[in-house]
Amino acid sequence: MRDVAIIGIGINKWGELWNKSLRDIYVEAALNAIDDAKIDRIDSMYVGSMSPGIFIGQEHLSSLLSDYLGQGSIPTTRVESACASGALAIRQGFIDVASGMSDVVLVGGVEKMSDVDSSKATDILATALDSEWEAFQGISFAGIYALICRAHMEKYATTRNQLSQVAVKNHQNGLLNPHAQFQMKLTVEQVNNSSLVADPLRLLDCSPITDGAAAVVMCSMDVAKKISRTSSTGTPNRPIIKLSGSGHATDTIALHSRHDLTTFNSTTLAAQQAYKMSSLTPKDIHFAEVHDCFTISEIIACESLGFFERGIGALATERGDTSLNGKLPINPSGGLKSKGNPLGATGVAQVYEVVTQLRAEAGSRQIKNARRALTQNMGGSGGSSLVHIWEVL
Amino acid sequence: MRDVAIIGIGINKWGELWNKSLRDIYVEAALNAIDDAKIDRIDSMYVGSMSPGIFIGQEHLSSLLSDYLGQGSIPTTRVESACASGALAIRQGFIDVASGMSDVVLVGGVEKMSDVDSSKATDILATALDSEWEAFQGISFAGIYALICRAHMEKYATTRNQLSQVAVKNHQNGLLNPHAQFQMKLTVEQVNNSSLVADPLRLLDCSPITDGAAAVVMCSMDVAKKISRTSSTGTPNRPIIKLSGSGHATDTIALHSRHDLTTFNSTTLAAQQAYKMSSLTPKDIHFAEVHDCFTISEIIACESLGFFERGIGALATERGDTSLNGKLPINPSGGLKSKGNPLGATGVAQVYEVVTQLRAEAGSRQIKNARRALTQNMGGSGGSSLVHIWEVL
Repeated sequence: MRDVAIIGIGINKWGELWNKSLRDIYVEAALNAIDDAKIDRIDSMYVGSMSPGIFIGQEHLSSLLSDYLGQGSIPTTRVESACASGALAIRQGFIDVASGMSDVVLVGGVEKMSDVDSSKATDILATALDSEWEAFQGISFAGIYALICRAHMEKYATTRNQLSQVAVKNHQNGLLNPHAQFQMKLTVEQVNNSSLVADPLRLLDCSPITDGAAAVVMCSMDVAKKISRTSSTGTPNRPIIKLSGSGHATDTIALHSRHDLTTFNSTTLAAQQAYKMSSLTPKDIHFAEVHDCFTISEIIACESLGFFERGIGALATERGDTSLNGKLPINPSGGLKSKGNPLGATGVAQVYEVVTQLRAEAGSRQIKNARRALTQNMGGSGGSSLVHIWEVL
Repeated sequence: MRDVAIIGIGINKWGELWNKSLRDIYVEAALNAIDDAKIDRIDSMYVGSMSPGIFIGQEHLSSLLSDYLGQGSIPTTRVESACASGALAIRQGFIDVASGMSDVVLVGGVEKMSDVDSSKATDILATALDSEWEAFQGISFAGIYALICRAHMEKYATTRNQLSQVAVKNHQNGLLNPHAQFQMKLTVEQVNNSSLVADPLRLLDCSPITDGAAAVVMCSMDVAKKISRTSSTGTPNRPIIKLSGSGHATDTIALHSRHDLTTFNSTTLAAQQAYKMSSLTPKDIHFAEVHDCFTISEIIACESLGFFERGIGALATERGDTSLNGKLPINPSGGLKSKGNPLGATGVAQVYEVVTQLRAEAGSRQIKNARRALTQNMGGSGGSSLVHIWEVL
C-alpha cells in the first residue's frame, strides 16, 4: 500500500444555513479544498453523508455532487455510517489512493439538517440506533446517551459539573474558530441549569443541529512531494501531512447486547488498528479531535482511545489536561459541541482542524509544537468508529 | 494492485417478503455466500443499499448487519449510489482487496421495499433523480425513463413491440431462475396492453418493487488459489472467477443537462475503463447482466456498452440475439424485470448470476461455453454506472 498525504482542506461557516441548499454548502467547502490544494485534477471523489434521503429527499449524492462541482464523469462514492460517515469517506479515500486506483481523491462530508423541524430531526438521528429494538420503542438518540452517561456516573462517580466542564472547554475553543456554529462562551452554571433533554443530559450537553460541509484533498505521497517541490506561490511550502494510521471497527448496534456501557469498544479497537499501523502509542499524540456528540461522549472517547485510564476522563477535563494549553488538548476546533455537528461533515471537519493545526495555521487557537494528532469519529451510540492518526513529515 | 477473485456467492428467494425484515433477508444471503465460499474468516464487509433510512427507518447498516451476521467488530462500509449501490459495493470491496488492506471481503446488497405503500415507494425512487429540479416538480422515476424512451423511439424508430420483446425475453429467462420474483411467462400482447404508467412505458415495461439480498465473497487471488487447492469436499474444485475489469463513472444527474437522452454516457465511460483494465473488447464478452429497470434501459445499456451500434439495440432483441441461445445472451437471470429489483441488492445479484453461469452451475438456463461476462449496474436515470468484467481462470 502506498503512503497517503493531505494536500488541501476546505470548510464553510457552519450553522442554520437557511439560504443555502446541500449542493451549495458542499460545493463551497469542496472548492475551498481544491483551491487550497492548488491542483487541477481529481481522479475520484468520496462523499460522507448520513441521511440526505430523509433530511432533503435526495439520495444519489455521488451523481449530484460530482455534477454540481463540475467534475464531469468522475467516479464518486457516497458512504454512510451514521455520524461517522465523514471519517468513513476519509478511510475509503485513503484505501483508494493507497491501492493505486487513484492518485488524487477529493473527500467531502455534508449534511443539511435544518430543512426539517426538530421533531423530525430527532427521528432521523434515531435511525442510527437499532430501529426495531430501540428507536421504535420510543427512546431517542439523546436517551441512549443518557443511559450511557448514567452508567458512567454510577461506575466512576463522574459528576454533573465535570460533564459541564467539557461543554465549557469546547465552547471556549469554538470562540476562536471562525467556522464554528456557536461562538459563545458558556459557564458551568449555564450548562447545569439548561433544559433537561434526557436525564442526566441537558440541552448544553448536546451537540446542535447543523448545516455544513468540509472537504480534503488526499493524494499519494509521490504526488504530494511533487506539488510541494513545484509550488510557485512564493511563500514557503507548507509541510506535508501524512495519514499514518487508519482504524475502523463496529460494535453491536443495540445497547442491550453490550457487556459494558461505559466504554466505546469500537473506538478502542479502531484505535488499536491505527496505533499499530502508525507505530505510535497514545502517549505520542499531541492533540486530538474526538466525537463529542454529547459531553459524556468526549469523556468516554478519551478513555477508549487510551489517553486516560477508564474513569479518569472526566477528572482529566476538570484538571484542565484537555484544554487548549493542557497536556493533551482535545477538540481545539470547539468540537461537535460548539463547532456544530452536520453528521456526514463532522469526520471530515476533524481532519480540517488537524491539518490546520499541524500546518501551524490555527491562529489564536494554535497548539504549540503539534506534530502528531488523532481524529476519532463515531456512528450512533458507538456502533461504528473510525480513528485516524496524522503526522507532519 | 492485487488480482481479486470471487470464491462465494449467496442469494435468497426474492419477492414481497412480508414475514422477513431487512436484517433477516441480508443475513440469509450473506450466510449462503459464506457457506458457498467455505471460509471461516472475513476481514471486512461492504453493503450496498439505496434508502433503508426511508424504506424502514434504519440507517447505520454497517453496524446493524455486521452485528446480526455475528461478525463482531469487523470494519463495515455501507455505500450508496441509488440503484447502483450494489455494484458500487462490489467495486469498493475490489479496491479494498486489491490494495492489500483486506484479504477476504464480504460484499452484500440489500433492500426492503415492501414495508411502504406504492405511492411512498415512488417518492423514494425519485430521490435518485435531481430532487429540486426533477422530482419536486412532479416527475416520477418512470416519467424520467419515459422521456428517455420517447427520445429513443423518435431517433431510432424503436417500436412498442420491440420494447415488449425485452420483457418477454427476460420473463422467459426468469421462468428458469428459482430465485426470481416473477416466474411467469409474458406475451408481447400482454406487455402492450398492460396499464400505462408513463407514456410510452407500461406496467410490464417496469421492474417491480422487491425485497431481496445478495452477497459474494471476494478475496485476493492468492487466497482463492489456496482455498481451491485445499478443498476437502471430495467434489471437483470449482473454477476460480476473476474480476478482470472495473469501471465507474457519473453523469449529470438531471436530464436537462445532457446532450443526448438516447445513450447512457456514464455506462459507456465505465465500460471503457473496464474493457481497458481487462484488455478485452465488447466482442470478447460471452453474456451480460445489464440494468433493465425498464425495458428501454436494457436496449440503451446494450448500445452504450458497445454490444450493438446505437439504434440497433431494439432490433438485436427482436432478432433474438440477446436470448438465452442467441449470439450474446443478455440477462440470463431474468434481469431486474423478472428476477426483481431490490435496489441495493441488484448489482450484487448480477454478480451472483455471472459466477453461477461461469461455474456452469446455472442448470436449465445455463449458457454454453461461457467464459467471460460483463455486469452493468446503473443509478437513477444513468447518473452513475458501474461496469465489471469477469473471467474463468
